[in-house]
Amino acid sequence: MSIVNSDKWGTAFVLSNGVLHKKDSKTSHGLIRGSNRFNIRAVIDSHSAGKDAGEVVDGINRGIPVYDNLDDAIEKRGKPDYCIIGVATKGGILPDELLEVIKNFLVRGISVVNGLHYYLSDQPELVELANTHGAGLIDVRRPKAFRDLHFWSEDIYQVHCPIIAVLGMDCAMGKRTATLLLQEALEKAGLRTEVIYTGQTGWMQGIKYGFILDSTLNDFVSGELSHAIITAYKAEKPDLILLEGQSSLRNPSGPCGAEYLVSGNAKKVILIHQPSREHFDYKTTWGRIPSVKNEMELINLYGSEVIGLMLNTEGLTDTESQTYKETYTRSLKIPVVLTMEDGLENFVQSLLNKINEN
Amino acid sequence: MSIVNSDKWGTAFVLSNGVLHKKDSKTSHGLIRGSNRFNIRAVIDSHSAGKDAGEVVDGINRGIPVYDNLDDAIEKRGKPDYCIIGVATKGGILPDELLEVIKNFLVRGISVVNGLHYYLSDQPELVELANTHGAGLIDVRRPKAFRDLHFWSEDIYQVHCPIIAVLGMDCAMGKRTATLLLQEALEKAGLRTEVIYTGQTGWMQGIKYGFILDSTLNDFVSGELSHAIITAYKAEKPDLILLEGQSSLRNPSGPCGAEYLVSGNAKKVILIHQPSREHFDYKTTWGRIPSVKNEMELINLYGSEVIGLMLNTEGLTDTESQTYKETYTRSLKIPVVLTMEDGLENFVQSLLNKINEN
Repeated sequence: MSIVNSDKWGTAFVLSNGVLHKKDSKTSHGLIRGSNRFNIRAVIDSHSAGKDAGEVVDGINRGIPVYDNLDDAIEKRGKPDYCIIGVATKGGILPDELLEVIKNFLVRGISVVNGLHYYLSDQPELVELANTHGAGLIDVRRPKAFRDLHFWSEDIYQVHCPIIAVLGMDCAMGKRTATLLLQEALEKAGLRTEVIYTGQTGWMQGIKYGFILDSTLNDFVSGELSHAIITAYKAEKPDLILLEGQSSLRNPSGPCGAEYLVSGNAKKVILIHQPSREHFDYKTTWGRIPSVKNEMELINLYGSEVIGLMLNTEGLTDTESQTYKETYTRSLKIPVVLTMEDGLENFVQSLLNKINEN
Repeated sequence: MSIVNSDKWGTAFVLSNGVLHKKDSKTSHGLIRGSNRFNIRAVIDSHSAGKDAGEVVDGINRGIPVYDNLDDAIEKRGKPDYCIIGVATKGGILPDELLEVIKNFLVRGISVVNGLHYYLSDQPELVELANTHGAGLIDVRRPKAFRDLHFWSEDIYQVHCPIIAVLGMDCAMGKRTATLLLQEALEKAGLRTEVIYTGQTGWMQGIKYGFILDSTLNDFVSGELSHAIITAYKAEKPDLILLEGQSSLRNPSGPCGAEYLVSGNAKKVILIHQPSREHFDYKTTWGRIPSVKNEMELINLYGSEVIGLMLNTEGLTDTESQTYKETYTRSLKIPVVLTMEDGLENFVQSLLNKINEN
């Protein structure tokens, strides 16, 4: 996966704390799939030690070995500039065991990159340790100060290239990965494509323009989004802008999406769906995920149009996947693709035809 | 206006800085209409000095005199415990002139209540002044610390009384005032009614349960909302809960509303509309406000139902207001009321009939 327009920082290890093989290690998976901000040299994960991290994630060897512990990793790969916490923790707090691991990095002068809502630089003990050993504490999700935040601006209407939001039918269906694969395919088709990141992993992967939506004060979400789009448009003059979606329009734990459509002026939407998932966050008590058709109607009411559907085939056989693809293509009359199985080349051509129709 | 379940703090002056007679003085207007947190003793406003504040706001004398300056106000009404900044400033920052006024309060030992995104307690000079003179600095909009925030909980589905969201077709159409008037009318009809505030003025008015939506990190908006509802339900066992809306579902400067419907589980909605307003925030470039019918369809797609429409008649003649009321009643087939002109008694009865139908 290639990421266009990145800020480069240095070498890094990813700490995935024994859960690299599980789904909740989204940040680790993103970094292993590709980061231009950090040169990922190793993963530390006791459960998958000895394997290649890429093979653990999706079966593709990426030359990123997994080690049981930091000492093993340093011995084989040298001391990195950074260590990135690649796991989400329950309730966003830091378990004691992870705290000890972090201290272990700091005493070796390795800076720690943290994407949790729990801020390391608020902990006097860690700050002192970092200062003593010349390491940094980077809390990616720490909210910006008021002076650095933007209110929404109608200058968004001066962005004269298509703005496409990549939205999901639920959380964790692969929106970010799909967005970056789309960018790659669009670039291959000759279109200069900017991605606006909206989560901490996007920033860690080195995407240049964006903001972290969930740690932004609500009053400034629309402003930060429009500011990122306007800035990217003016600086890069892209042919097309993709917005990384967050959550989903109707997930009860935190709906999101209206901001992209009305404040980000995304008149086109690509939807991500996982047909095997019936309930929000897999929980029957959270309610059924609506149909794709119903989601398209909702998006229409916001003044935007769904131009393509990307399917995550988790939990489906090949035959089932093909059946879903054919059924959706026929009933929704939009391009449909199996994100990981099909190449995106034809899909991207269909999207471009659809965009040029209007 | 009576506010049920309030936290009482003390006496206060409201500083409206020469704009009490204008619409942008929403916080001042709310406090003058009614506050149980503060006993409002006077308003400081050079433009309206000599008048009664209630008469300036809506023609109703409330025994709250307006003075030109702090010294006059103290001479006539005694020194208050608090002074509340009752104006919004451009971009949320504090003009130098207002800073001098605030210092003038602090040296007299009067605590300052501030609802701007600009935090007084971040200014060393003000903190020192406050400490020296035994005054407090209360930054209402300062975001809560992570440890005090809540993630969304499905316990919201254990709230077994109707939850009704009061949503607007645009910002500043009188949602908060309508919500409090509804509460008053519902209480009169014998229903114990809790309001969940979602803005700084609601807190200043003394509403007991709620949070300040626009200064909450996006990840916690759904959680803080559901937590406030669940807490109010458990503690007060009300017959009905009203949620104060913010912004509107499709205002491009910051859409809001989906959270109320899916995370707050508000299956019923009362819409506030001002028929004379054609464009969002009165700006043609921001786009047309959709029709009420279209808004009802959008709300339906979120799984909720509009059960009543309250009209703000600003800019309309009496005849026009009546015509709108009749037209909406006929075409939408829901109860419609002129919020400030009609009494809410009949409207509330119609709402209750509609709720009991289901």
